Amino acid sequence: MLPVELEQFLQNHIPLSKAMQVSVVDVGDETVVLRAPLAPNINHRETVFGGSASALAILSAWSLLKVRLSEAGIVSRLVIQRNTMDYLSPIQGEFVARATLQHPQGWQKFIQTLARKKKARIVVSAEVQHENQVVGRLTGEFVAFCA
Amino acid sequence: MLPVELEQFLQNHIPLSKAMQVSVVDVGDETVVLRAPLAPNINHRETVFGGSASALAILSAWSLLKVRLSEAGIVSRLVIQRNTMDYLSPIQGEFVARATLQHPQGWQKFIQTLARKKKARIVVSAEVQHENQVVGRLTGEFVAFCA
Repeated sequence: MLPVELEQFLQNHIPLSKAMQVSVVDVGDETVVLRAPLAPNINHRETVFGGSASALAILSAWSLLKVRLSEAGIVSRLVIQRNTMDYLSPIQGEFVARATLQHPQGWQKFIQTLARKKKARIVVSAEVQHENQVVGRLTGEFVAFCA
Repeated sequence: MLPVELEQFLQNHIPLSKAMQVSVVDVGDETVVLRAPLAPNINHRETVFGGSASALAILSAWSLLKVRLSEAGIVSRLVIQRNTMDYLSPIQGEFVARATLQHPQGWQKFIQTLARKKKARIVVSAEVQHENQVVGRLTGEFVAFCA
């Protein structure tokens, strides 16, 4: 999946990503990186609203799974079950969220379980960065369902 | 603080709350209840995007502390440090977030610590509801700083 395809999908189907002015920086096998500017995500302290930082991290995590499942030719429904977000520093400008699998070596087992049980669970980590500093960390637990 | 005052504050200072069409349902001593419609918060499955559910819960939690500190005449800066969000069911329409202190009996100690150390920590819970069913639960850890 090309960055422009993912960006169009997000903007067309998740209006909040459009309101947040989310753009797709990178789509790879191992990572998806999304970016958002400060202005639409600002709070009363002129830093990024925590809900925006968290939403960008969730979007990046979900996008990574969507891209990897799509590349593997698997049609499935992805549901977030739980996330934890640590806010490490106030974010004073444009920010990115970089999602990776928490345990990349668990991907094959995830795919096999999904094929066998039509349901499998996986954990994604996302780092939120501003000017190359880590300013937040999300851990998201997702469940994929196959028809 | 009146619901209309809180709503104006959120809409004027946190543009994402405007994009989400957040309204204030109730402002009380014990709870703040915020509401948002499905349309601006929808995902590709036509249910509420997890990032929107989480953002509404964070806003309600932050608002409860802001209101309580303001009623107590305390000027402080509130920072979210960490949150955990459980997504219990897909949300198929308008949703509300109802914030309460996790330990209401700890409020006095929080205020005293804030006065003495200029910094204090407190935990807020927020239930996300749709048609009177609990569909999500957030726990948010905040730190207040006094000048």
